[in-house]
Amino acid sequence: MKNAVVLLSGGLDSTTTLAIATDQGYRVHALTFQYGQRHEHEIEAAKTIAERYQVAQHHVFPIHLELFGGSALTANDIEVPKQRSDEEIGTGIPVTYVPARNTVFLSIALAMAETTPAHNIFIGVNALDYSGYPDCRPEFIKAFETTANLATKAGVEHQGPFRIHTPLIDLTKGEIIRRGLDLGVDYALTITCYAPSEEGHACGTCDACNLRLKGFSDNKIVDPAPYTT
Amino acid sequence: MKNAVVLLSGGLDSTTTLAIATDQGYRVHALTFQYGQRHEHEIEAAKTIAERYQVAQHHVFPIHLELFGGSALTANDIEVPKQRSDEEIGTGIPVTYVPARNTVFLSIALAMAETTPAHNIFIGVNALDYSGYPDCRPEFIKAFETTANLATKAGVEHQGPFRIHTPLIDLTKGEIIRRGLDLGVDYALTITCYAPSEEGHACGTCDACNLRLKGFSDNKIVDPAPYTT
Repeated sequence: MKNAVVLLSGGLDSTTTLAIATDQGYRVHALTFQYGQRHEHEIEAAKTIAERYQVAQHHVFPIHLELFGGSALTANDIEVPKQRSDEEIGTGIPVTYVPARNTVFLSIALAMAETTPAHNIFIGVNALDYSGYPDCRPEFIKAFETTANLATKAGVEHQGPFRIHTPLIDLTKGEIIRRGLDLGVDYALTITCYAPSEEGHACGTCDACNLRLKGFSDNKIVDPAPYTT
Repeated sequence: MKNAVVLLSGGLDSTTTLAIATDQGYRVHALTFQYGQRHEHEIEAAKTIAERYQVAQHHVFPIHLELFGGSALTANDIEVPKQRSDEEIGTGIPVTYVPARNTVFLSIALAMAETTPAHNIFIGVNALDYSGYPDCRPEFIKAFETTANLATKAGVEHQGPFRIHTPLIDLTKGEIIRRGLDLGVDYALTITCYAPSEEGHACGTCDACNLRLKGFSDNKIVDPAPYTT
């Protein structure tokens, strides 16, 4: 049984990715980052999901990217945008972009993979819905994979075994949800909202909520997660 | 005046690198990692050196790579090797290799660079004395630079401005020390030893001490740093 490190945020995409890795027969080692999010609800969601899937291990790894600021998701002085128009979504790089986030996340996943050992890393990036994020593009993933195989003892000794899997990269949100439902994902456990209530209920109006709700709507089903509105 | 992020461990190589960046006219933003080293002496050394060079800012960034284990430098169950023969040094990958370390360090430096903003990152890697470390090789550095320019908002919007500077990569330890002395580096402030005493004095016998002492010997001068032996 092959080992895989799966990045698990507690959101819809990473949970679907975990389900896909499990379905493909990988023994999952989950990795969740605690990186100065404004809320801890997604970490709790990640723990619940990791338990549900009986992963081999689950690391919650603190990484204080908020020390550098620069993003609405980690800095308190940049407001998370609400109710942007369809035109605005998908144009330019959003303020919710976290500088170098996926590079940092994948490099720490690589450190975990090398010590596990695992040669497969799964990340739920998506190039369609998040077209504004440079570190969600296939060319970035490919460059990181090349770097990983040059950077490591395992890469040198086993001649480039590391593979970064991005099973969602070309899918629409609707297709991701369809795939997850086919695999029995319980989306009530997942949290996607940028700015949930104190109880962890989604706002229903931020970019992330809008994309998620549209994905469920495209499948003609109701999102089972709790919303405040 | 251009900004640069300089990785500063408090050791001989990174301090020389800081001196070179300063000499080249960069405004230095220093970054020191607290990553489960066995001792904190090098962090104190880094703080002293950053103050001496009056850097624009100095981040001491906690990164808990010891959670994953896998190296004599971060795990307590792997012994730091002592008095290896000249033949042993430079053959194979040493147990002091920390999985994916420079990938993690550079990715966090990239996050700091993007928020500073700075487009130049200096790292004191050396491909000669540390030929066993895959992430000290020029091909790794080049691959990371490519990744950095694909990963980031600044990379996309300014068409690949990030540059990873490795001014020591082709130098012997003796040449590094010569360069530093020419720039007025006070090597008494630096600490290189893998296993210093409680007072922070170098052991004089580990791989790192041996390389350093040989470098001073090649310059026919005495290392001003304190040793226990």
